[in-house]
Amino acid sequence: MYFTSQDIVGDITERHFRIGEIPGVLWTPTSAHADSPAPLILLGHPGDLGRMHPRLVARAQRAAADGFATASIELPGGGDRQPLPEIERARNDLHAALAVGGPIDEVVDRLVLPLVSQAVPEWQSALDGLLALPELRGPVGFSGGILAIAIRLARVEPRIEAAGFFAGSFVPRSMFEEARQLTLPLHVLLQWDDSGNDRQLALDLFDAFGSAEKTLHANMGGHTGVPEFAGDDAARFFKRHLG
Amino acid sequence: MYFTSQDIVGDITERHFRIGEIPGVLWTPTSAHADSPAPLILLGHPGDLGRMHPRLVARAQRAAADGFATASIELPGGGDRQPLPEIERARNDLHAALAVGGPIDEVVDRLVLPLVSQAVPEWQSALDGLLALPELRGPVGFSGGILAIAIRLARVEPRIEAAGFFAGSFVPRSMFEEARQLTLPLHVLLQWDDSGNDRQLALDLFDAFGSAEKTLHANMGGHTGVPEFAGDDAARFFKRHLG
Repeated sequence: MYFTSQDIVGDITERHFRIGEIPGVLWTPTSAHADSPAPLILLGHPGDLGRMHPRLVARAQRAAADGFATASIELPGGGDRQPLPEIERARNDLHAALAVGGPIDEVVDRLVLPLVSQAVPEWQSALDGLLALPELRGPVGFSGGILAIAIRLARVEPRIEAAGFFAGSFVPRSMFEEARQLTLPLHVLLQWDDSGNDRQLALDLFDAFGSAEKTLHANMGGHTGVPEFAGDDAARFFKRHLG
Repeated sequence: MYFTSQDIVGDITERHFRIGEIPGVLWTPTSAHADSPAPLILLGHPGDLGRMHPRLVARAQRAAADGFATASIELPGGGDRQPLPEIERARNDLHAALAVGGPIDEVVDRLVLPLVSQAVPEWQSALDGLLALPELRGPVGFSGGILAIAIRLARVEPRIEAAGFFAGSFVPRSMFEEARQLTLPLHVLLQWDDSGNDRQLALDLFDAFGSAEKTLHANMGGHTGVPEFAGDDAARFFKRHLG
């Protein structure tokens, strides 16, 4: 892992890094307490760090206000990483199936399962590199992004002690058993009127999560219209568990 | 409306009152700002002010910390009010139907609709009396209690500008049309693992509410096990809309 740039953006320091071929970004609070190590929240996203940058920076700034460092890495096939033609094909097939209202289980499996298998070890490697830095420490949180990746990562990675899930993407039915095995505190955000999402799947998954503390926050505003107060609620969840 | 007692309980002043035959309680903050009128939150409950007193006082204290006055009145047939034998019979019939897993729609109608019809004008009279006091002012919120009463009151009473619903009691299917007519901001609390509740009814109702701002917070802990952080979230909802 090595850094390729460093910038001050408001109250945070943004450093781009690479871990092997994978680009990533680390944001640390540049506050009075910046000399003691900060707990880390990994920021999930749907792919393409460049396109997602403004929203990731806003989330990083919100987290830094509570004393958290944040980091993210590019997804397999995302941004300027090597394209994954089979996943691209599956993504197109999913959009086509949704447009005609056809069955989607097979194509969701074909799209999501390989992405999960490849992404999760990459996030774990990034975590190894990040936690070796003196300015970062556990406990670690994971927030948002592709739900199936977040579920697998929360299941296999014990350093993640609290997770904020965004229930806004398709999860293969075969992953329900993994959902049942989760035990960490969960804060689940659902956009109730997200027309491109399977709301019943999200509710079924919330029911399946094995965690003793799990909270569902459902709001209006469509897929990208999460209200500001819902972001504040999620921030308080991480403060309670990682602060 | 006349007061029958006055006590200081921690940071609040508790005054019992009667409006006609109906007993009620008013809690006002005894803080530095107690000389300017406080916005009012009406506290719903399942009936029997005496039995519910400790929990109502805790809610009143939480609200007073944000500068709110709170008040509640006894439900028809509740506490030491004149018993309502038909409603008692319906309540027993409901428990019997639930115990054998039989159909409940007819008995829910028989239990809830007369209670709603009688209770709602009583809450409105109480509101008339309370808002005539110089120490209280609008905007008014309504929080918790029997969901069907809260829905009807929120629909017919324009002085109520924000409502926190507790989705933990049966609502007649005939009231869905009223739910669709609501436009005020709503904060809905659902105990996901409340075994005596109809969770699907609660989710269907949340979907039906016509309000542009509506939020569902679902938590674990059973009917009476609302986590403290969920109470804090509800308090912030009222602060945002009435503060």
